[in-house]
Amino acid sequence: MLTAAYTGNKTIELQRRDAQPSPGQDEVQISVAYTGLCGTDLHIFHGDMDARVATPLAFGHEMSGEITAVGSSVEDWAVGDRVTVMPLDWDGTCPACRAGNQHICHNLNFVGIDSPGALQQRWNVRTDLLVRLPEGLDLRTAALVEPTAVAVHDVRRSRLTEGSKAAVIGGGPIGVLIATVARAFGADVAVLEVDAARRGQVEELGFITVDPTAVDQKAWIEEWTGGVGADVVFEVSGAAAAVLGATDLARVRGTIVVVAIHPTPRPIDLQRVFWRELEILGARVYERTDFEKAVELLAEGTIPSEALITKVVALDAVEEAFHDLEAGRAMKILVDVQGDEAPVTTGATR
Amino acid sequence: MLTAAYTGNKTIELQRRDAQPSPGQDEVQISVAYTGLCGTDLHIFHGDMDARVATPLAFGHEMSGEITAVGSSVEDWAVGDRVTVMPLDWDGTCPACRAGNQHICHNLNFVGIDSPGALQQRWNVRTDLLVRLPEGLDLRTAALVEPTAVAVHDVRRSRLTEGSKAAVIGGGPIGVLIATVARAFGADVAVLEVDAARRGQVEELGFITVDPTAVDQKAWIEEWTGGVGADVVFEVSGAAAAVLGATDLARVRGTIVVVAIHPTPRPIDLQRVFWRELEILGARVYERTDFEKAVELLAEGTIPSEALITKVVALDAVEEAFHDLEAGRAMKILVDVQGDEAPVTTGATR
Ligand SMILES: [Zn+2]
Ligand SMILES: [Zn+2]
Repeated sequence: MLTAAYTGNKTIELQRRDAQPSPGQDEVQISVAYTGLCGTDLHIFHGDMDARVATPLAFGHEMSGEITAVGSSVEDWAVGDRVTVMPLDWDGTCPACRAGNQHICHNLNFVGIDSPGALQQRWNVRTDLLVRLPEGLDLRTAALVEPTAVAVHDVRRSRLTEGSKAAVIGGGPIGVLIATVARAFGADVAVLEVDAARRGQVEELGFITVDPTAVDQKAWIEEWTGGVGADVVFEVSGAAAAVLGATDLARVRGTIVVVAIHPTPRPIDLQRVFWRELEILGARVYERTDFEKAVELLAEGTIPSEALITKVVALDAVEEAFHDLEAGRAMKILVDVQGDEAPVTTGATR
Repeated sequence: MLTAAYTGNKTIELQRRDAQPSPGQDEVQISVAYTGLCGTDLHIFHGDMDARVATPLAFGHEMSGEITAVGSSVEDWAVGDRVTVMPLDWDGTCPACRAGNQHICHNLNFVGIDSPGALQQRWNVRTDLLVRLPEGLDLRTAALVEPTAVAVHDVRRSRLTEGSKAAVIGGGPIGVLIATVARAFGADVAVLEVDAARRGQVEELGFITVDPTAVDQKAWIEEWTGGVGADVVFEVSGAAAAVLGATDLARVRGTIVVVAIHPTPRPIDLQRVFWRELEILGARVYERTDFEKAVELLAEGTIPSEALITKVVALDAVEEAFHDLEAGRAMKILVDVQGDEAPVTTGATR
């Protein structure tokens, strides 16, 4: 079978490997259909996570597929079942797990980062990580379940309710998913985005956008909310200036959810946090309920999946796809992993 | 009557004024007994709040006293009633007020800062700001109600429960009050304080202390909490390094309450906020329920009031008292305001 593996030094190699062994007794074997590429994968490609990943790594944690074999003890799953994988493997014994926060396990194995993932044609996965796909959800769309679950988790953490005003800072794929989920939860949403092309994409999805370089964003939000301020601000941009400005946008006792990764400490206006009794919350990955909600939102068509999927590439074009992502030319790129041997791009220049 | 008033330029003047007029129809006249001096008063003295205060200002917002006259419409209060004042005068119409957060009113008049306060022998106050003192609470102790209410508010905001582990960064008067209130709410408390003399004071009150300059505070908290991390961290020090380190001390989904004033933006480890899904909360002043809880805690003797009151000075010694506070030589200094004419310090060198 074929895999796409990170081999270090900004290189992704298409590798031919022996067939997977039969699944273990509590595992199934999945024929992976589509695998999405995300910002974390890009970090792996850049070598930022070399201390954490063992090479060669067939990474990938956003996926869909079909069961082709089941282990000897497996009862609830059958060959032909269509599934996605919630890629969190916790120890169940650490303080976070014992407190019910397994998704933030102190010793979390994030499948596709800390162990092999979905960029392989056949994948053996423990059944407790499986999430069933309903009839109406096709495999291409289902590859968006994992990033949608991130957005559901962010929105649930924010505690926004019907009629809340939510400001999303950053109109990339995660920002758009958060905006979409927040709207599905009943919020009025405005997206702040500096890039005109991205603003155009976001507006096509029916959202109000704000260009923070052209207007006074604090004054804009004040006017939009009738002098109240936003109930919730999602910081998705990763920019230091955005973090510093986020506290200006929230109402008294409003919530700021830190979604983006900020590798270095960021200055925060604690005077404003104090003055308005703001809450700044971290949100990491998802819980099972978020994953199931994401499946539901995608199945019912609430998430504009086709607008999010910029393109689908072959398994030998992953490295090239990363260059597209780096250039900011794409929202979401899927890899078509299907086959015993993967489809290979014709005429691709590497 | 006499008042102590800030007249600008780091000066407090003892001023002789005409007697107060009779109280308005919904006011009472209070003979002020004791007025506490706090960090905000020190900021006024330093001129940091000159843009906000109208001089001369008889400041002071921590007080106790006795009613000496009541306005024509006043029904529930009588001459001789012993009271304190909750010094928040809100408009009742702004978005914060309409949402039930009157204490963070967009147009808050903080009595004693934005309007005259308790460093005057006779003070006319609207009855809606009054809080009744119970039989067993003497006027000297009752001057601590306001700062205790701040601590109650901080602890309530933190949502700590019976058996929580709470770390208090900073062992000054506010830190000690928070530690004491947290203990009264059932928490195990450790106080982190760099100054040895302050640590001594805190230990005498029965608290564990940690010297962050001598031990690895993160490792210490980890061990203290059995590898879990603190449920709640109160940042009371105002130091940038303390803010940066606070996120290391909290457990998964733990809470960091920002109590201290941070005049400039502070770097915060958002990577850790994300990784552990931390919550950073602002807490400002108090609500009525906090004030009433503070009265209760002081009346039942839960707050070590005598250990907190370093000394009581006469009305002409306020400026000198500020120099003591600046030098870090005092926890809480009260001003004895009693009399038609104030007692004057004998032999004071000014
Ligand atoms: Zn765990
Ligand atoms: Zn108001």
